[in-house]
Amino acid sequence: MPPAPNDRIENDATEPSDTSPSDEVHDRDRTPQWRVKPGRQFPFLARHPWVHAHALIGGGKAIGGKAPENETQSQCGDVVDLVDIDGNFLAQGLINPASRLRIRLYSFDRRHPICDQFWRDRIDLAIARRRLAATETGEEAERLIFSESDLLSGLIVDRYADTLGVQFTAGALLRYRDLILDHLRQATGCEKIVVRIDERTAKFEGVSAESGTIVSPEPISPDGVAYRQNGLDLVVDLVSGQKTGGYLDQRKNHAAAARYLHGKRVLDVCCYTGGFGLVAAKAGAAEVIGVDSSEHALEAAKAAAERNELSGRMSFVRDDCFDALRAFADRGEKFDAVILDPPRFAGSRKQVDQALRAYRRLNTMALDLIPSGGMLVTCSCSGRVSRAEFVAMLTDAGRKKRRDIVLLENRGAPADHPTSATCPESEYLKCVIAQVM
Amino acid sequence: MPPAPNDRIENDATEPSDTSPSDEVHDRDRTPQWRVKPGRQFPFLARHPWVHAHALIGGGKAIGGKAPENETQSQCGDVVDLVDIDGNFLAQGLINPASRLRIRLYSFDRRHPICDQFWRDRIDLAIARRRLAATETGEEAERLIFSESDLLSGLIVDRYADTLGVQFTAGALLRYRDLILDHLRQATGCEKIVVRIDERTAKFEGVSAESGTIVSPEPISPDGVAYRQNGLDLVVDLVSGQKTGGYLDQRKNHAAAARYLHGKRVLDVCCYTGGFGLVAAKAGAAEVIGVDSSEHALEAAKAAAERNELSGRMSFVRDDCFDALRAFADRGEKFDAVILDPPRFAGSRKQVDQALRAYRRLNTMALDLIPSGGMLVTCSCSGRVSRAEFVAMLTDAGRKKRRDIVLLENRGAPADHPTSATCPESEYLKCVIAQVM
Repeated sequence: MPPAPNDRIENDATEPSDTSPSDEVHDRDRTPQWRVKPGRQFPFLARHPWVHAHALIGGGKAIGGKAPENETQSQCGDVVDLVDIDGNFLAQGLINPASRLRIRLYSFDRRHPICDQFWRDRIDLAIARRRLAATETGEEAERLIFSESDLLSGLIVDRYADTLGVQFTAGALLRYRDLILDHLRQATGCEKIVVRIDERTAKFEGVSAESGTIVSPEPISPDGVAYRQNGLDLVVDLVSGQKTGGYLDQRKNHAAAARYLHGKRVLDVCCYTGGFGLVAAKAGAAEVIGVDSSEHALEAAKAAAERNELSGRMSFVRDDCFDALRAFADRGEKFDAVILDPPRFAGSRKQVDQALRAYRRLNTMALDLIPSGGMLVTCSCSGRVSRAEFVAMLTDAGRKKRRDIVLLENRGAPADHPTSATCPESEYLKCVIAQVM
Repeated sequence: MPPAPNDRIENDATEPSDTSPSDEVHDRDRTPQWRVKPGRQFPFLARHPWVHAHALIGGGKAIGGKAPENETQSQCGDVVDLVDIDGNFLAQGLINPASRLRIRLYSFDRRHPICDQFWRDRIDLAIARRRLAATETGEEAERLIFSESDLLSGLIVDRYADTLGVQFTAGALLRYRDLILDHLRQATGCEKIVVRIDERTAKFEGVSAESGTIVSPEPISPDGVAYRQNGLDLVVDLVSGQKTGGYLDQRKNHAAAARYLHGKRVLDVCCYTGGFGLVAAKAGAAEVIGVDSSEHALEAAKAAAERNELSGRMSFVRDDCFDALRAFADRGEKFDAVILDPPRFAGSRKQVDQALRAYRRLNTMALDLIPSGGMLVTCSCSGRVSRAEFVAMLTDAGRKKRRDIVLLENRGAPADHPTSATCPESEYLKCVIAQVM
């Protein structure tokens, strides 16, 4: 039975954490303490950064001597300490009373309290993380900061040539907005910054949405930011684009898939602005047919095809992906390769089964269009759907259609989209390159 | 309750498979039928290639009109049909009465019965699968056939320059030994072949072990087969080597890890013949210390370092990996990067927990040697340990040591070591490249 709100359980059996360092303690007199319910401290001992309101005693109301009596006294962006039922320090974070994700944790070490310099250091570490590997030539676009994966929950920064796309997904982090933008400018040398807060974040975090606020001493072209990627001239619309940018997470998968598509007739389902198809055509695919339901996305894809002189080999169909697959099957069409890169099917844990059914349906339908020996490139960006579940779904699809599916590459996001071991939710992208027999 | 041996259950509720094609049926009068127990047909409808004796009625004794009365009449390598309790065709395979893995399935389609040409076709398809991607220059060594992943359970073929290393892990497949070797020679143009049957296979499959049988018109040098890989001059001892060859599965992970190791002091734990360390040193690592318990492996590693003029930056310690890690920690030594590539810890499902404890201990100890910002390259080749379990083990290790672990690359085996969607066991290799904070 969960304890009633505001219950104080002093005789709880929770042992004091043996991992709290006691050598150096910073002055925490003025930091409000928030207490987790008994037995709910384990994720935070394992350094998980998300504290939901229901994990906190009082459902997110502060408790303890110098702490505010209730949440109305906490302001979005205030630094708070998270403690266990016995008052042992767990971590320090920022609170957002308006969000069900009440506290985001950033420091699990008392010796590193949150202050202005703390954010600058974290930003520097994130950028340095992108410089760990021997550089690859021609990477004009990259993700510089990836939220939890870079121990900066709620901040995403992409660089396209000399322009930064900054996305805040944590309301509490807006307290440090100017500091973060200033330091990003300094650390990257990029003077042009576009800030975005999407509708979903705005609703979830109780802040105002921003579709693309330009923070730049010089104007940013309304035609978008031009950059080169995978040998293509691309343009990203940071100001009114639907995401931070141009699907940087798939860029190496685009290139990997294209290696298998030379001379082939390719169906690119949910092609959006043409990612997989453009790179495939550039790499010598004989014909690429892109399917997407968004006219806006297809216009961008067509423009990119023209810009890169690939229009002769690329065509586009505006349709629902399931309807399009059925129509091709009805006409008895076959493709040497089918690419499936649908939008996220599962946004929550509840939707996983439903999402797996949708993936199974989509992949099963694709198998009908692929002759023996053909290729299937199939993706999922639903973080809730595990890689194991995704592969099991493929097994099912193969069984149903009596086809053997040989997985050649089982890929994820590139190294500039890392995964935090403490936040498994940060792994989300699956891209399987398979041969269908 | 499982049915008693030799029980015939005619009134079983199992529905006839709706996926058996009935349009073309080859003459199966002379093919013995083996029947799976009721409810045990599902893995084979999902095209899993392994039929264990305990899944068969009679514990692996044939049943049915024209079939032999008991297993003594079946010879190792005989073609058999697998049928469900109602006699519906499931698949065709080869039987080995001496093995608990009684039948290996190769064809799930009646229209493609097993015959000499069947094996030639499968070999051709496997080799063609390696030519699907745009070729990479300088790949002198590759896996051409990978058992279940290439729908050829029990056959592994590696090519090192002009020599093939052929490993049989299925006794039943030895019936086709000459045919397979002849066709491999023809399909690859490689005249030199070395056949190996390891001790484990020999025991499990009831056949004779072969440490390295040379099948070649010209002699194979006792000094081993020379080949280039990752810019290194390497030698593989196919005749007396401990595996088929030179750990081809890790070759791209060696190169990927090396990109992060330029100028670094590297500890290469369980270095075997020097795989990770040699490529790191070649890529500019300042110092590489290799640790392995095998004197034989370390001799090969030292010879490779000398051959590639890397001896000045490489040294080797013969020690148990756990003891070595403890000794380095006791001396307060730190490394910019630690590589962990231990041998298989879990050979069976029962050993998974034990293996995970060993991985946790090894990785936890490694964290003590890595300063904040340093690199951890950590591998597992235990197929029984899932990728999710391996990452969870890393989370645990980080929690225990209060370290954040950022996974940059979550890698597996290269595309010439594919995974069959119908045989998830064929995915086994995990290689995580992480930064430790």
